[in-house]
Parts: sequence; C-alpha cells; structure tokens
Amino acid sequence: MARKRVYRSKKKLGQVPGSVIYTGERSKPKLSLEAFDYTKQNCVEKELQNIEESFQFKHTDSITWININGLNYVTEIEKLGQHYNIHPLVLEDIVNIAQRPKIDEHENYLFIVLKMLYYDKDQNIVSEQVSFILGKNYVLSFQESEGDVFDSVRDRLRHAKGRVRNMEADYLLYTLIDAIVDHYFSVIEILGDKIEDFETKIFSGHIEDDASRSIQDLKREILRVRRSIFPLREIIGRIEKNDNKLIHQNTITYYRDIYDHLIQVSENIDIYREMIWSLMDMYMTTISNKMNEVMKVLTIMATIFIPLTFIVGVYGMNFQHMPELQYKNGYFIVWGVMVAIFIGLVYYFKRKKWL
Amino acid sequence: MARKRVYRSKKKLGQVPGSVIYTGERSKPKLSLEAFDYTKQNCVEKELQNIEESFQFKHTDSITWININGLNYVTEIEKLGQHYNIHPLVLEDIVNIAQRPKIDEHENYLFIVLKMLYYDKDQNIVSEQVSFILGKNYVLSFQESEGDVFDSVRDRLRHAKGRVRNMEADYLLYTLIDAIVDHYFSVIEILGDKIEDFETKIFSGHIEDDASRSIQDLKREILRVRRSIFPLREIIGRIEKNDNKLIHQNTITYYRDIYDHLIQVSENIDIYREMIWSLMDMYMTTISNKMNEVMKVLTIMATIFIPLTFIVGVYGMNFQHMPELQYKNGYFIVWGVMVAIFIGLVYYFKRKKWL
Amino acid sequence: MARKRVYRSKKKLGQVPGSVIYTGERSKPKLSLEAFDYTKQNCVEKELQNIEESFQFKHTDSITWININGLNYVTEIEKLGQHYNIHPLVLEDIVNIAQRPKIDEHENYLFIVLKMLYYDKDQNIVSEQVSFILGKNYVLSFQESEGDVFDSVRDRLRHAKGRVRNMEADYLLYTLIDAIVDHYFSVIEILGDKIEDFETKIFSGHIEDDASRSIQDLKREILRVRRSIFPLREIIGRIEKNDNKLIHQNTITYYRDIYDHLIQVSENIDIYREMIWSLMDMYMTTISNKMNEVMKVLTIMATIFIPLTFIVGVYGMNFQHMPELQYKNGYFIVWGVMVAIFIGLVYYFKRKKWL
Amino acid sequence: MARKRVYRSKKKLGQVPGSVIYTGERSKPKLSLEAFDYTKQNCVEKELQNIEESFQFKHTDSITWININGLNYVTEIEKLGQHYNIHPLVLEDIVNIAQRPKIDEHENYLFIVLKMLYYDKDQNIVSEQVSFILGKNYVLSFQESEGDVFDSVRDRLRHAKGRVRNMEADYLLYTLIDAIVDHYFSVIEILGDKIEDFETKIFSGHIEDDASRSIQDLKREILRVRRSIFPLREIIGRIEKNDNKLIHQNTITYYRDIYDHLIQVSENIDIYREMIWSLMDMYMTTISNKMNEVMKVLTIMATIFIPLTFIVGVYGMNFQHMPELQYKNGYFIVWGVMVAIFIGLVYYFKRKKWL
Amino acid sequence: MARKRVYRSKKKLGQVPGSVIYTGERSKPKLSLEAFDYTKQNCVEKELQNIEESFQFKHTDSITWININGLNYVTEIEKLGQHYNIHPLVLEDIVNIAQRPKIDEHENYLFIVLKMLYYDKDQNIVSEQVSFILGKNYVLSFQESEGDVFDSVRDRLRHAKGRVRNMEADYLLYTLIDAIVDHYFSVIEILGDKIEDFETKIFSGHIEDDASRSIQDLKREILRVRRSIFPLREIIGRIEKNDNKLIHQNTITYYRDIYDHLIQVSENIDIYREMIWSLMDMYMTTISNKMNEVMKVLTIMATIFIPLTFIVGVYGMNFQHMPELQYKNGYFIVWGVMVAIFIGLVYYFKRKKWL
Repeated sequence: MARKRVYRSKKKLGQVPGSVIYTGERSKPKLSLEAFDYTKQNCVEKELQNIEESFQFKHTDSITWININGLNYVTEIEKLGQHYNIHPLVLEDIVNIAQRPKIDEHENYLFIVLKMLYYDKDQNIVSEQVSFILGKNYVLSFQESEGDVFDSVRDRLRHAKGRVRNMEADYLLYTLIDAIVDHYFSVIEILGDKIEDFETKIFSGHIEDDASRSIQDLKREILRVRRSIFPLREIIGRIEKNDNKLIHQNTITYYRDIYDHLIQVSENIDIYREMIWSLMDMYMTTISNKMNEVMKVLTIMATIFIPLTFIVGVYGMNFQHMPELQYKNGYFIVWGVMVAIFIGLVYYFKRKKWL
Repeated sequence: MARKRVYRSKKKLGQVPGSVIYTGERSKPKLSLEAFDYTKQNCVEKELQNIEESFQFKHTDSITWININGLNYVTEIEKLGQHYNIHPLVLEDIVNIAQRPKIDEHENYLFIVLKMLYYDKDQNIVSEQVSFILGKNYVLSFQESEGDVFDSVRDRLRHAKGRVRNMEADYLLYTLIDAIVDHYFSVIEILGDKIEDFETKIFSGHIEDDASRSIQDLKREILRVRRSIFPLREIIGRIEKNDNKLIHQNTITYYRDIYDHLIQVSENIDIYREMIWSLMDMYMTTISNKMNEVMKVLTIMATIFIPLTFIVGVYGMNFQHMPELQYKNGYFIVWGVMVAIFIGLVYYFKRKKWL
Repeated sequence: MARKRVYRSKKKLGQVPGSVIYTGERSKPKLSLEAFDYTKQNCVEKELQNIEESFQFKHTDSITWININGLNYVTEIEKLGQHYNIHPLVLEDIVNIAQRPKIDEHENYLFIVLKMLYYDKDQNIVSEQVSFILGKNYVLSFQESEGDVFDSVRDRLRHAKGRVRNMEADYLLYTLIDAIVDHYFSVIEILGDKIEDFETKIFSGHIEDDASRSIQDLKREILRVRRSIFPLREIIGRIEKNDNKLIHQNTITYYRDIYDHLIQVSENIDIYREMIWSLMDMYMTTISNKMNEVMKVLTIMATIFIPLTFIVGVYGMNFQHMPELQYKNGYFIVWGVMVAIFIGLVYYFKRKKWL
Repeated sequence: MARKRVYRSKKKLGQVPGSVIYTGERSKPKLSLEAFDYTKQNCVEKELQNIEESFQFKHTDSITWININGLNYVTEIEKLGQHYNIHPLVLEDIVNIAQRPKIDEHENYLFIVLKMLYYDKDQNIVSEQVSFILGKNYVLSFQESEGDVFDSVRDRLRHAKGRVRNMEADYLLYTLIDAIVDHYFSVIEILGDKIEDFETKIFSGHIEDDASRSIQDLKREILRVRRSIFPLREIIGRIEKNDNKLIHQNTITYYRDIYDHLIQVSENIDIYREMIWSLMDMYMTTISNKMNEVMKVLTIMATIFIPLTFIVGVYGMNFQHMPELQYKNGYFIVWGVMVAIFIGLVYYFKRKKWL
Repeated sequence: MARKRVYRSKKKLGQVPGSVIYTGERSKPKLSLEAFDYTKQNCVEKELQNIEESFQFKHTDSITWININGLNYVTEIEKLGQHYNIHPLVLEDIVNIAQRPKIDEHENYLFIVLKMLYYDKDQNIVSEQVSFILGKNYVLSFQESEGDVFDSVRDRLRHAKGRVRNMEADYLLYTLIDAIVDHYFSVIEILGDKIEDFETKIFSGHIEDDASRSIQDLKREILRVRRSIFPLREIIGRIEKNDNKLIHQNTITYYRDIYDHLIQVSENIDIYREMIWSLMDMYMTTISNKMNEVMKVLTIMATIFIPLTFIVGVYGMNFQHMPELQYKNGYFIVWGVMVAIFIGLVYYFKRKKWL
C-alpha cells in the first residue's frame, strides 16, 4: 500500500460542500468508458468515445452496465450525474477517493462506495475506490483508473455464462461486488503468506535490524485492509435486510452469500491481526536469546582464561625467594594444574548446558 | 492442524456463483455411502453402491440417515441434491470446505454446516467439514472423507439404545451434532494438556530455541479451534429459539443441552487462550533469568581474579628498586594478601546471594 | 484448586444423552442424607438412613429441606428424581460435576446449579458443585460430598433465628445461596492476600526462580473462580426479574441483595485480575534491576583494574632500554599514578551513582 | 487509600440477613447529629443531642436536612429508621461501609449510597461511604465520621445563597451530591499530578528501586477510585430518566448536569488509567537504557585496554631470542604503537556514538 | 497541547450551581464581536462595538450570525443570554471551557458545545471551546479568543459562494461545524506525520534518551484529541436522527455528511492510537538491539585477546627450566600460534555472523 497516499484524507479545507472535486493524485491516465447493454438474448459491448454516448441507455428496456475509469474527469462525471439525476453530494463522494465505504438509498437509485483491493507487481496492496449506482435497469460503476477485477463478469456477460443475462440489474451489481469480495480473499491470503514468511525468518534467526519496522508496517497494512473491508459487511447486511424495491427478493440470497464471505474474510483478518501483534514479542525473545548466546561465549572464555592468566602471572613475579621457580619440573607442574583447571571448567559448563 | 491447508480460503476467483465446485485437496479417497433406515421396531443398515440407491428413502415413512463421504464427488452430490430438491447455493456450500459454520432455513429442510474436530495420530487437530440436511423424515450428512465421530450413534441405532429409535429425524440430527460437540471436549482437553506440558517445560528450563515458535503455533491453533466452535453456539441458539416446524418441541430441550456444552467449551477455550497469551511473558522471564545466571558467573570470576592478576602484575615489574622483591617472605606475604582478598570477595558474593 | 481435576470436562464420549452418570472421581465418601422439616412453630431435624425416607415429605404442608451428599449414588438420586418428578436431563446435570452454573425453570420446580467455593486446609480453593431444586414446599440440595457452608442456616432453622422459619421455601433457598455467596467473599479475600504477599515478595527481591509459575497459577486460579461466580450473576438476575410463581414478591428483595453482593465480588475479582496481570511486568523489572546490579559490579571492578593491570604490564616488559626502570623512585611513582587513577575512577562511579 | 481497609468486604459470615451490623473499624469517634430546617424565609441550624430530637422534623412543612455522623451507632440509626419507616435492609446497607454505590426506590423515599472521596493530610485518598434518604420534605444523610465536603452547602443554606432555599428537598439532595462530585474532580486532579510527577521522576532517571511497587499502587488506587465513581453514573442516569414523584421536573436539569460531570470525571480516569498502564513500559525502557550505559562503559574500557595489555605481555616474555628487545628505541616504538591503537579505538567509539 | 491546562477540570469547588463563571485563564484578550446579517440578495458584515448592538438582529427576517470572541466577558454574555432567552445553565456551560462536547435541545433553540482543534506555530495542538446557539433565524457562536477556522465561511457569506446564502440558519450552523471538522483532518494528519517521523527516528537509531517520554506525550495527545472528537459523533448523529423543528429536512443530508467525516476521523485516530501503542515495543527492541551490538564488540575483543594474553603470560614466567625459552625460534613460533588462534577466532565470529 503506497505509504503516504492512502491514509491522508485530502479533505479540501474551506471548500463549498457539494462541490465535485477529485481528491486523488493529479497524474491520472485518460478517461475510459465502456458499456454493456444486454437482454436475455443479446449482449452489446461498446467502447464509448465520450460521456454523451452513454446517455442513450437510460431509457432502454435492456440492462446496461456503464463503467467509467478516471475519477479526475469531473466534468464528464457531472454531466453523467445530471443526465441520470444523481445528487451532487453523491457525485462529490464518487470523486473523493478517501470516502469511507458506505451505502446511500435515494429515491430512484442506490449508491454504494467500496474499496477494491489487489496486490500490484511490487506486492504492495492497491486500494482503489469503486462506486456503484444501481438504477432500475442500469448499473453505473466508477473507478479511479483502468485495470480492475471485473474480467470474469465481462466474460460471463459476453458468453451468457451463469445466470447473469437472465436476471435484473441488481444481480449484475451482485456479481460485480462478488468479484471484488473474491479478491479480498486473495489479498488476505498473500498477507497471510507474508506474515508466515516473516515468522519463519524471525524463528530461523535471519532477521535484519529493521524487523520491528517491518512488523509495524504489517500492522499498519492489516489495519488498513481491515478498515476497507469491515464497513462493507454492514453495507451488505443492510441490503440483505432492507426491502428496497431495487433489490428483488430472489437476489437477496446471493447478497447473503457475499455477507457470509465477508464474515469469513473478517475472521481471517482478525486472526492475522492477533498473529502480527504477537510478532513483536517473538522478535524480542529472539533478540534476548541471541544476547544470551553472546554472553555465554564471553563468560565461558573469560571464566576459563582469567584464572589461568592469574596463575602464569604469579610465576612471572620477580621475588628473589620463590621456591617453586627452582623446582626442576615446576614449569610442567604448573602446566598440569592449568590443564586440570581447564578441564574442570569445561566440564562445569557442559553440565550447565552452556556448551 | 495442517498448516497451509486450513485457513486458505480457496475461493475460486471468477467462478459463476452457484456452481458446485469442490474446494478441498484433489487426492481424496473414493466415494462411500451408507444408509440407516429405521422405525421403532426395525433398523436396516446398508452400504450403498451408487447415489441412485439413496433415492428410494425419500418417500418412506421410516426415518432415514444417509451419510455421504467424499465431497469431491460433485456429480453424485448434485444428483442427490436434485432428487431431494436442494438449492444449488446449498450444494455449493456443502462442497466448499472453507465454509464457515452456518444454518440456513429453507422451506422443506434445514441446512447446517459445522466443523468436526479431532486429533489425528500425529497429534494434529483435524478439522473436517460436516454438513447436515434435515428433512421431514431424513437426515443427509456430508463429510470430506471416511472416518468420523458417529460410531456411538450407529451403535445406538443398531441396538436401539437410548431414545433415538423412538424419536423423529430432528432427534437423530441432535445425536449427530452432540457426538461432534462431545469431541470438541476431548480436543480442548488435549490442547489443555499441550499447554500445561509446555508450561512445565518452560518452568523447568528445558526449552528449545524454537519455544516462541511453539507458542505462536499454539496461539494459531486455539484461534482456529475457536473459529470452528464459536459460530456453532449461535447456530444452536437459533435452533433452540426458533419455531421451525422440523424441530419438535420436546427435542428443543436436547438442543439446549448442546448449547450448554458449547458455552462450557467456549469458556475453556477462552481460559486456555489467556494462558497461552501469558506463555510468552513467562518464556521471556525464563530467558532473562538464564542471562542473569550467566552474568553472575562471569561477574564473580572476573571480580575475584582481576584484582589478583593486578597484584601479581605489580611484582612482575622490572624496576631496579622494588624493596618488596628483596624481602625474604615477600612472595608468601603476597600470597597471603591474595588469599585474604579471595576470601573477602567470596564472602561478599555469599552475602549478596550470588553464590 | 486441584490442578488436574477441575477444568477437565469429563464429558463421557458416546453416551446416550439423558443417562445419569456421575462424572466426578470414584473414591467418594458414603451417601449422607439429612432432612429439616419445619413450620413456624416447629422444626424436625433428621439423619435419613435411605433415600426412601425422604419421600414422605413431599406432600406435607411444612417446608422441607432435604440435603443429599454424595453425587456418586446415582441410583438413589434417580429414585428421588422419580418420586419428585424431576426430568432425567436435570438429574444428569446434577451428577455431572462439570456442569456450568445455570438455572432451568420447569413446570413444578426450579432447578439451579452453582459452585460452592472454599479454601481447604492446604489453602487450595475447593470448588464443589451444589444443585438446588425448589418446589412448592421443599428444597432439595445435592452436594458432591459432606462438609459445606450451610451450618449457619442449620443453626437458624434449629433456633428459629431471623426470618427463615416464618417464610416459604423460596426464602430457604435464598438463605442457602446467600451462605454460598458469603463464602465467595472470603475466598477472594484470601486470594487477595495471596496476591499482596506475592507482590511484597517480588518487591523485596526474595523471589524464587519459579515466580513466573506462581503468577501463572494465580492467573489460572482467578480465571476459574471467575468462571464459577460470573454465571451466577445472570442466574440471580433472572430470578429477580422473572415472575416465577415459586418466588414470592416479598422474597425478591432478598435475591436482589444477593445480586448486589455478586456484583461486588465480581468487581473485586476483576481488580485482582488486573493486579495479577501486572505482576509479570513487575517481576520482569525486578529481574532486570538485579541484572543491572550484577553488571555494575562487574563494570566497576573491570574498569578500575584493567587500566592498572596494563600499567604494571608495561613495566614488566623486558626491553633493554627502558629509562623509567632505572629511576630510583620509579616504582613508587608508578604506585602513585595507579592510586591516582584508582581514586579518579571511584570518584567517577560515585558521581554516576553506581557506588 | 488505607491499603488493608478498603477492599476487604468484611461481609459477616453466617449472619441473619437484614441484621443492622456496622462493618467499619471499631475505633470510631462519637456520634454527631446536626439538623438544618428551612423555608424560603428562614433557616434553623441545630446541633442535636440525641437521635430523638430529630423525630420532630418529620411532619413539619419546612424542608429538613438531618446529618448523622457515626455509622457505628447502630441503635440510634435503627431508632431513626423506625421513626422514618425505613426498611431494615436499607438500614443494613447504610451501616455496611463496603456497600457498592446504588439507588433503591421505595414507596415513600429514595435511598442512595455513594462514596465521598478526598485526600487526607498524608495525601492518601479517603473513601467514606455516604448514604442519603430523600423523603417528601426531608433529606437524611449518613456518614462514617465527622468531616465532610458539605461546608459550601451549609453556607448556602445559612445565607440563602443560590436557589437552594427556594426549592424542594430534591434540590437539596442535588446540591449535596454535587458537592461530592465536585470533590471527585480535585481527587483525580491530585492523582493526575502524582502520575505526572512519577513520569517526570522516571524520565529524569531519579527512580528508586521500588518504582514498580509505586506503579502497582497507583494502578490499585485508580482502580478503586474508578470503582467508587463509575456506578454513580448509572445511578444519576436513572434519576434523570425516571419519573419518580420525589424528583421534580425542574430539578432534573440539575441532575443531568451532575451526570455530565460524572462522564467528564470518568473520561479523565480512563485517560489516567491508560497513562499508568504505560508507566511500567517506560520504567522498563529506563532500566534497559541504564544497563546499556553500564555495558558501554565496560565495553569501552575492556576493548581499549585488553589489546594493549596483550602487547605489553608480549614483551614481558622471557625468550632468549627476541630481536625487538635489543632495539634501542624498541620501548618507545611499542609506546607509539599502543598510543596509535588507543586513538584508533577512541575514534571508533566516537563514530559509533558510544562516547 | 499545553500540558497543564487542558485536562484540569477547573471545576470551582463550592460554587452555587448555575453561576456563570469563566473557567479559562485570566489573561484573555479583549472582547470582539462580529455580525453577519444576510438574505439571498444581501449580506451585511459588521464589527460590533458593544453587546447591545447585537440585540437588534433578533427579530429581523434575515439570517444572522453573531460571533463572540472572549469567554471571560461574562457580563456581556449574560446580557446577550437574557436578550435571547438563554437558560442560565447553558450560559454556565458556554463559559466553562472544560465542558465536554454536548448537545442540548431547548424549546426555542439548540445548544451545541464542541472543541475546535488546530496546531499553533509551535506545533502544539490548541483545543478551543466553541459553543453554538441555533435559533429560528440566527446562530450565536462563542469562542475563547480571536482566531478561528471560519474564514472560508465568512468568505462564502460575503461573496455568496455555494448554497449558504440561499438556505436557513441550520445550514449556516452546518457550514460552521463542517469547517471545524475539516480542521480535525489536518490535525490528525499532522499527528500522523509526527508519529511517522518518530517511527523513522526510532528505526534509524537516532533516538534521544527521552524517547519514551515523547511516546508518552504522543499517547496523551491522541487520547485528548480522541476525547475532543468522539463525543461529537454522537451529537451529529442525534441531529441527523431527530426531528427538531430547527433542522430542516433538506439540511439533514449535509449533517449526515459531517457524520461520515467524523467516522473517518475516528477510524484514523484509532489506527494512530494502535500505532503509538506499538512504538514503545519498537523502542524496546531498538534498545535491546543496541545492547546486543555493544555486547558483541566486548565479547569479540575479550574472546580474541584473553587467550592470547594467557599465552604471552606463560612465557613471562620465570621458571628456571622452561625449555621453550631456549629454542632459537621459540619467540616466532609463539607468534605463529597466536596469529593462528587469532585467525581461527575471527573465522568463528564471521561464521556466527557477529562480524
């Protein structure tokens, strides 16, 4: 997850409320628009050239999915919003990429903001905001930039796989959200691998000095993933319980399925969280164990040689009357004594399990 | 608990929802089907050769328990599902072994998923998914593979022990769930033994270097056991409170009994959890105590011999005018002084309780 | 608290539900039965020889308290159960000593299980299961073995102290539960003393090496006491709020009083819990302080004598041209320098507050 | 807070419930009774000689405040209770100084127990139980001993300051409770000062060896203050929400004001709590930092002089053929080498920021 | 945040309740009054000379915002209060700067207290109390002193930017609160930067000795920010849910928007909180890592030179019969042995990754 970007709120101080202002980074790729217009029999897929082309779909009987990539194109989004009668505050939320996941029920449409999570090539979590507007016969989706997790949905629309072509717009919305939630699983799976790799590293002693930084980063990562995913639970729970006329009775079962998956993701996140919180303790014991080892080496060396050095010091004294010095085998006797002390101390350390 | 397998979600990215796809490992043993068909007077036990043989029991008056081992045989399970009118999403849940424990009430049947826990020969917790479908006069059970905790139930059915032959299908379901919950007790008992053994090891100082890894593994194990067991509490609570027509009034008391047991298991799990969380602290103090001991040895040795070595160094100097060197008993006096210092320091350390 | 015994569930795997099987230890003392049968005017106390003698009290107008010691006498308890129309599941709970405290309302009686706590002679907490059955005009109580906390109640019955002889059976039940709850206070008081003694020990530095084991044991002890006491709060709360016809309006106030006491006990338990959880930290700092002291001694000794030893080493060299060696007072000058260094270092350590 | 006294429950084992028994310490000062009897126009203040003098106020139209100091005078309190129709269980609670703060609504009066907290001269928190009985036109207050926080209330009564003389008894009760809650603020302020002083001490390194004991004592203190104050929140909340006929509509606003203050006190307590809980960690790092410093001194000294001592040792050897010994400037060259090594090592330590 | 000032309650002991007493510091700047009186067409901005000038706006049809800086001018505030019929307890709360954020609904106005947070030039958080009174056609705002976060609102009023001139007083109140909440974002952003800078410092090892003090200060800061912001959530939630006639239906959406922002701020605060709580652990590991490094240097030096010093000591002995001393190359052989030992030990430490 890009460090600086994500948890800055980028709230524009002093702005008039309801003004549609893009809060992401300025260097965004070009606008890209695509439309899927389908009935049970037929499915038209189209790359749109400008926002006006999307207006025609509003009043057709067919179901339409219009996907807009590029939240920085605020004028286009405002035009679309006017045509589809979207409230200005909703448009403001769509382009404010720091928006918390939420659901808003309006008279003729349902507005849902959520976070799409995936790992990029550098194994950083990318959190991209996706907004949906569900109308009677259309779904509008807004993404920060191109590249998403909806390819399987496109495929199913094109080739009439599964139920999606036989159902209403609410089922299309379900498949889109389901695709996002499916990716949550792979994100936490990779996160889980990271944690386990890290654990293994710590246990094997191959730890760098910035291990505690890595732990702190893992903590931050899981807290952010958590913050992206947990509010969605409540949102889906509300869809499931409500009797909004845009969500049909037979689709509810599918939303309940998403809800189940979210509970599962949440539980895994909380388990990982507890694991990460324990890592620091583990790291601490590893450090202490290492220090113990260092200390043992020092202690063993010092304890063995300090008395021996004392003994040789004794016979280095220059007293005129030191009887031992005249002994013929004095030198060898001293060696014998020293070897005996050496063996005794080594045995002592063996028994203490220090060697 | 197999490390990698259990908490991977294995959610199949991009699949059409409602498609019945087995998510476990591929190397599963063969399909095995067994049926118990019984009335108060009679009980027929039968090993079925194919799934079609099980269809006959649907419309009999007798109570039938059909047990299917082998969730990888999805076509067979789909056939059974069609015959018994099971919703495709339910079938999907049955073969998705990462399914969280849950209960779903359908018009003509009740669907329950839960986790069977037992220790295998290597003392690893095995978590196997078991699904139940309770109909008017039948119970279908689905297990990942052969080998389960239901032998006592089979025995009671065969020999008409207890109440089970006199009661309806809901009581049969009760005895099956009860058998699973009973095994939770033995699982946490073994877990408890592991924790206490580990504590004892830590206290006695016989700890390996990977103690903190073992603690982390224990933490993970208890978190997973917890996750398998806690949702069941809610499920049984719902059975107990609801007025589902498939659960008769006089059976409710028995479900309440299971509920009681689950509360008890949960409390034990939470106590073990707190114990495990404390283990790391204990381990830390053990390490520190050991280091203290090492340091003491070093300090005692160094403190005693460093001054003595200094003294012998003094008389190793080569000054021309060192009056002591000429003293007749100089050498012996120095020895006397050194012995005095030695005794003094030993006494000092004794008083400090370091020796 | 006997280590092994209490938190083993001893759930009998594969047993028919509703079978009345004693789960405690086998070496139980003999059955002992006592009965108090009283009216406002009169109180008969009787040691019963067999269970059948207790049957006569069921239909008298007087209030009867029958106390059964010895849960291993299951046949006797089943006989009693049949005579008083007790449900088999209730009987199962009575003799299952791992039963969690609970209340069950049946048509003609109220069933309550709770834990009696007291310290035995070895200062171990004894947790004994006590079950009560409150009928219209009788209270049956079941205990694991002889010896209990009800002597004051017996005394009041015998000598018509207080209100007990003037009230109904529900008041008798109240006095019995009150006696148990009163003992909770003394248990946590002793537990509190243990914690404070332990704190004092740690602070005074007189700690054994198994201090962290003692802390872990204290943790376990308080967790178990908590588990025995906390569910009772809910039970009494339910009695207080319900309109069970067996509990009269004017007795409710007394149950509310018990509830108050239980809240008070619970608060104390939670305070002790926080205290115990802090003990490990305290112990850790004590260890670290000790190591600091050890290190200081080593450092002071080494820092003072290492430079001095170097100096004497210098003048032990055998160079032919070492002018100092010829100085008349060279030896004494070196001594002077060494004394100066010694004093300087001692002063330095004094200023650092290490000495 | 007196260590032993406060959290002992002093529950009298085996006592008849409802017996009015004083549970505080026996060496209590004499009984002291005072009465304020006032109307809008007039206020009579009177020191009562015996409890019977207080009976006259029951049926006057004026508002009366009778304050009883000395809970050990149980007979007097029982007499008063009989005259004012107080329930025996209420009287029991009044004289049981381990009573948890609570409110009891009776038909003709409201009974409130709470804790008055203040610091005595030795800066120990004194927790004194105060009970109030609010009747239609009177307030009875019971305190453990003389000395309280009500002087400002007395002053306002005497000189008709503020609203108190124009309002009913419920407003008088409000001013009394308000005075107590006001003192909570000063108690936690002093507690806050203690914590900050302690922090400053730890940071400045001027810590005694019993720092961890002081931290433990602070923890205990805040836990007890918390326990005295938190239940009151609920009590006042209940007064504010209820429609007890003794509390008039226009007084409710004032009770809500107390409630606000209690929330504020509680928040401060919880902040202090978190601060104290962090102190131990801080202390630990301080210890570790100190040890680091000790170790550095040792390491620097040893690292510099050990190689030098080795060098001088080399030239202290007595080999017959050691060419360096004959060099004219050998001695001075060795000195040069040693000085170079010394400077090199000092530079190394400087670069490592150890010096 | 000024250390001493903020969390002292400054509750005036013994004061008559309802007395309007300023609780801030005495050295406050002069009173400053400003008024904005506007309709859709027109906006009059005026610096008021005295409080009486503000009275005229009460009965105009236009919307009026009167902003009072200087809570120490209690007489002026009381005059204003009387003119606008504000309850004395409300006035007391306005000038009590330790007031907790709250909302009070009165018959003709709504009273809201909240905290304005911003960083001053020294990067200390300033927490200033702001109170609002919303009447039918006016908003009164009370600030401790000049300088606030409302300049963007003033600008919009002057130049009729956005919706504010077309809407009622409730929308004006919304824009004012919104401006305050917007500043919460920048406050927590700066706090976030502080935490990250601190983390970076700790990781890079450039930590001062008072690092643990800084961590404690960060903890305190975040706890206070939390306490200022969290109650506001509930306040706005109540506005949003209630049907107060002063808040129009079409403004509710805007308040819900604030609520959303507050949830977002709260989540960020809680993430930062967890981060700060981890900092101490990180700091601890950094200290331990440093000590490890120190110990390694010592151990390496000592382990290498202690045996060498022993060897040279051996040949410094003065025995008459030491054959090695006569060897021609004895001296060089000893050097060879010592170099070999040196190389062996260096290799050993390399393999252990200590070098």
